Amino acid sequence: MFGLDRLIDRIDELASPISVGLDPLLSMMPVHLSREMFGEYGDTPRAVSEMFFLYNMAIIDAVADIVPAVKPQIAMYERYGVDGVEAYVRTCEYAAGKGLYVIGDIKRGDISSTAEAYADHLAGAEIGLERVDLWHEDAITVNPYLGSDGIRPFTRACREAGKAIFVLVKTSNMSSRELQDVRIGGKMMYEKVADLVELWGAELVGERGYSAVGAVVGATHPDVGRALREAHPGMFFLVPGYGAQGARAEDLADFFDAEGRGCIVNSSRGVIAAWQRSAEAADEAVAAPDAKRSLSLVSASARAAALTMADDLRSHILT
Amino acid sequence: MFGLDRLIDRIDELASPISVGLDPLLSMMPVHLSREMFGEYGDTPRAVSEMFFLYNMAIIDAVADIVPAVKPQIAMYERYGVDGVEAYVRTCEYAAGKGLYVIGDIKRGDISSTAEAYADHLAGAEIGLERVDLWHEDAITVNPYLGSDGIRPFTRACREAGKAIFVLVKTSNMSSRELQDVRIGGKMMYEKVADLVELWGAELVGERGYSAVGAVVGATHPDVGRALREAHPGMFFLVPGYGAQGARAEDLADFFDAEGRGCIVNSSRGVIAAWQRSAEAADEAVAAPDAKRSLSLVSASARAAALTMADDLRSHILT
Repeated sequence: MFGLDRLIDRIDELASPISVGLDPLLSMMPVHLSREMFGEYGDTPRAVSEMFFLYNMAIIDAVADIVPAVKPQIAMYERYGVDGVEAYVRTCEYAAGKGLYVIGDIKRGDISSTAEAYADHLAGAEIGLERVDLWHEDAITVNPYLGSDGIRPFTRACREAGKAIFVLVKTSNMSSRELQDVRIGGKMMYEKVADLVELWGAELVGERGYSAVGAVVGATHPDVGRALREAHPGMFFLVPGYGAQGARAEDLADFFDAEGRGCIVNSSRGVIAAWQRSAEAADEAVAAPDAKRSLSLVSASARAAALTMADDLRSHILT
Repeated sequence: MFGLDRLIDRIDELASPISVGLDPLLSMMPVHLSREMFGEYGDTPRAVSEMFFLYNMAIIDAVADIVPAVKPQIAMYERYGVDGVEAYVRTCEYAAGKGLYVIGDIKRGDISSTAEAYADHLAGAEIGLERVDLWHEDAITVNPYLGSDGIRPFTRACREAGKAIFVLVKTSNMSSRELQDVRIGGKMMYEKVADLVELWGAELVGERGYSAVGAVVGATHPDVGRALREAHPGMFFLVPGYGAQGARAEDLADFFDAEGRGCIVNSSRGVIAAWQRSAEAADEAVAAPDAKRSLSLVSASARAAALTMADDLRSHILT
């Protein structure tokens, strides 16, 4: 399977165009879990690393049969140094082992030889006679600001390893307009970037008709999604911003093509922190006697939230 | 000391506006070193991590009294996974311990809560009751494509931790023109970014008159350097591209202000791989009986290259 083909097949199988953003925060951890880990490892990054991984396992186990993909955000791990990064890698490996498509939200970008080094996220590192996959990512997000020679090492890695990238085109935040919406001749900056994405991915089209070079397009900009969808039929979109960032399913219909394809919608807090919005959350310290039982609550809430989200998207897209 | 003040003082003290790019490659490692480490750890990322750290120690020890700063490029480490990242962190910590100003070339950038997580590179991670510095960086490089709300967490961290950032304005690669040189109204994209950098750093000016929010401006674009220098007198430039990427000292004079300040020039391969260009390199396997002696050759060549570079810059800038 090449590029995004496996992801697309799995979206079709599950009728669930969802990625779950594995973006843990210390404030999301059930009190039993943090107490046990801080108890065991002290106030150390190792304790955080262990609790994040256990938390993610609970989420992954709960959603692996109902969503096609997860999107761990590396920043949330990297802030805890080497131990944090280890939790990220373990999370990717565990998710991949459960058959999930792993989108590493790493937003890397640099120039040629350095971009080559980052591209080893996908290609694997050359040590001794072979390449070793040390990150367990099927796709990663990439920043386009440095231009084509910063992207080519990633597209080469996609070709060689059968993987994919999502290039930032239009991000979901307010200030994205400052640089992404500036007008250049007759086009907006993000349209120019989308044209480049099309170019970069032209020779990497998979069997399902989509290029392995996709685009990140924020759910908070429905007009942009519609226009880009029309202009780039073979471009797959990764769409953050649903739920917590304010975008609703009805805003997203036009990001998909006529067959209800071409797009995966990410939700992070809406799924992974769903347990904190549940009635039980307040009583968690009482209701759940230990970390293990607290994590069952996390799992159940995440699964319910992912199912609700899938229903929500289906009812607005596959109509 | 705030922001870039300590760096600026040290540049003045040494009359050496140089950062050494600690960007190791496996192909740079002396054969004795790689043989010993692969022998001890097998063909593993751990072996690479250990040899990169030993190599960097040799460079750091050789230059700590003649250059003010080092700039490790995290991609070169990250490609080797968690073990690689550990070599990066150990390198930053070791360099900081030797009094070097550490510029983490990490080119991170994301939106609000995620940018906050990345900003912990500077602010330290909150674990228990205090913040812990897990990365040992004095400054980092940042990508501006997501706009102000992606930068604000970093400037907040600069203010709170007394640290600094360098925002990508105009990178040294050929394709930088694709997005950075597009014309928007009367300005180029990179000029617009430089205006934002000025704005982001306006309230973070240190005692030496420069803002803690600096700019990355490639040495390969002398005209750009000159124009940005005139437009932004209080903006400090980090300038990659000297040496291996083709820029010469005479091209760099106008990146500095009238007092010969406001700029630090980076060289990576030119310094750290200098030993490979020496007459001895070819005979290293013969001349140096072991890793330790090979690393002395690495040290001596790096020191000589850094001294030559400092002379070269001085003769063209402080005239």
